Amino acid sequence: MRTIGFACNSAEEALTPFHFDRRSPRPNDVVMEILYCGVCHSDLHWARNDWGQTIYPAVPGHEIIGRVISVGPDVTHHKVGDIVAVGCMVDSCQTCDQCRKGEEQYCREGMCGGTYGGMDAVEKTPNMGGYSKHLVAREEFVLKVPKGLDISRAAPLVCAGVTTWSPLRTWQVGPGKRVAVIGFGGLGQMAVKLAVALGAEVTVLSRSHAKEQEALALGAKRVLVSTDETEMKKAAHSLDLILNTTPVKHDVTPYLPLLDVDGTIVMIGQIGPMPESSSVPLIYGRRRVAGSFIGSIRETQEVLNFCASKNILPETKMIPIQDVNKAFEHLEKGDTYYRFVIDMSTLTVD
Amino acid sequence: MRTIGFACNSAEEALTPFHFDRRSPRPNDVVMEILYCGVCHSDLHWARNDWGQTIYPAVPGHEIIGRVISVGPDVTHHKVGDIVAVGCMVDSCQTCDQCRKGEEQYCREGMCGGTYGGMDAVEKTPNMGGYSKHLVAREEFVLKVPKGLDISRAAPLVCAGVTTWSPLRTWQVGPGKRVAVIGFGGLGQMAVKLAVALGAEVTVLSRSHAKEQEALALGAKRVLVSTDETEMKKAAHSLDLILNTTPVKHDVTPYLPLLDVDGTIVMIGQIGPMPESSSVPLIYGRRRVAGSFIGSIRETQEVLNFCASKNILPETKMIPIQDVNKAFEHLEKGDTYYRFVIDMSTLTVD
Repeated sequence: MRTIGFACNSAEEALTPFHFDRRSPRPNDVVMEILYCGVCHSDLHWARNDWGQTIYPAVPGHEIIGRVISVGPDVTHHKVGDIVAVGCMVDSCQTCDQCRKGEEQYCREGMCGGTYGGMDAVEKTPNMGGYSKHLVAREEFVLKVPKGLDISRAAPLVCAGVTTWSPLRTWQVGPGKRVAVIGFGGLGQMAVKLAVALGAEVTVLSRSHAKEQEALALGAKRVLVSTDETEMKKAAHSLDLILNTTPVKHDVTPYLPLLDVDGTIVMIGQIGPMPESSSVPLIYGRRRVAGSFIGSIRETQEVLNFCASKNILPETKMIPIQDVNKAFEHLEKGDTYYRFVIDMSTLTVD
Repeated sequence: MRTIGFACNSAEEALTPFHFDRRSPRPNDVVMEILYCGVCHSDLHWARNDWGQTIYPAVPGHEIIGRVISVGPDVTHHKVGDIVAVGCMVDSCQTCDQCRKGEEQYCREGMCGGTYGGMDAVEKTPNMGGYSKHLVAREEFVLKVPKGLDISRAAPLVCAGVTTWSPLRTWQVGPGKRVAVIGFGGLGQMAVKLAVALGAEVTVLSRSHAKEQEALALGAKRVLVSTDETEMKKAAHSLDLILNTTPVKHDVTPYLPLLDVDGTIVMIGQIGPMPESSSVPLIYGRRRVAGSFIGSIRETQEVLNFCASKNILPETKMIPIQDVNKAFEHLEKGDTYYRFVIDMSTLTVD
């Protein structure tokens, strides 16, 4: 089907309107009109070819809220008119042990079904993301948006939300757990809200006090400034888990002494090289550096349901799609803690 | 009390005979005649001042088997004539939460009570290690050597043994677990023996096939040569736990893809800088890099008892103390998989 989106044609170019075809729906496909799409830092990495794998023209976007406009004959879980969501994945092999136990993000075939970045398994064409008017996706990867969730703000839950939710669940965060969040942007604010809602005592680790009021307003107990050596020393051994949402290369070693014995720092923001570090704080404290990759479809539905039941929404700022390049500039500067969400009604076929 | 040992006076010098005083026994002290002492790679690091903290003259040695020759009036767990052992610690604060739960190696005061490297808390003098004729130690840090254990080979259990035992227990190794060991030296061979005895399927990761026969003889299922890219690729996702006993700076990134989802590599050999690495294999597989530091007194007694019950002994080579500098040369080359053990009866007062 013919649709329109915003795409860039090289790492140097801005996103501009782009007409393209979505695949013809297959029997297990859901077709949706996209209503909202969050602007994730990964979108920027993808547009700029930071991972060296971008295929142009590139349509980013994997925080998608839409309305079902048609379904294939084999679709059983969704119907026309439903409000649905699509996150970072639109496919996986569905047969390996990881897929069968509902951890599609760690599919043995690799992350072949990226909403963008992946290739369609049947048509062998690059998947195009959510900065567009329509999406076609197989039903297993289409989430239900629970009633009561403000759909104009819910889009970031299916990427930023589940990316922070999954490690919070894996490391069993709940009352009594001492959790810190490095980086207070799109992922960081979700991490704070979700950890607080799970009952944890939450610290925000930041380079300055600039976002302190916002962090405290979301329920954080304190902001610890990582350049303040005295405060950092005082906070030694005071954390069970650190979610590290920083999206750029940086050394994690200075944060490790903050962890108590058996504590873990989880890399969820930056995918790439890590500078020289040290095994000393790992060994003297049985500490761990781990990674976590988005989350499963099951966990994505779980975080949507959890947020609906607890009335949790990401901090967002609605923009017309024409402002998406400006939003990218803010992401590059890291000067916002809220998530930009594109109002897709501003994307019109001229 | 007056005793004799082997010490070096600088990082460049060989170990030579050295007369010195042990502290006068306190009411809760055990005095022992040392019968055997293992030669640990840490002894070499300490003698060479590799950690920058050595105080000379330095008497290394923290794999000690001895016979009790006197006990203070408050000692209740040991008596004259008992065969006992002392490992890496001879003291800790005994009052912090870590000490109270029996994890003295992670004492909140730090590892103040090193058998060498630590300072005596009362006399404020540097502790001297086990390359000597006698040792004085408070009874809480003196282990019982179970009957049936060949005391001429048991010394390495209280350092190399517990250093591998502790992470095997922390990461719950048992039947069905796929464990690999990097480095097949003093620690590595203990890791293989203990993991095999716990029921795990064990792989040895090595730079060559040089020690393959020895590894298989100890119960390893295979030797995987880390420079063989084809074999390494085939072995992707095939391990739950890697114990990394390598004692020198090296990059762990190439080993990470061998781990299955949620797998962990534990640093137990090298304490110091780690070169530039990558978060990619951590994130795409929720893998973890952890550290583990020796083991607790409780775990040290546990591994002694386990080895006695399973008839497990380290591979050792007995040497007279006069050959200890030659043993250091072998450790530097990494060309032995067995542990050198000093027969302390060769240390005579001339």
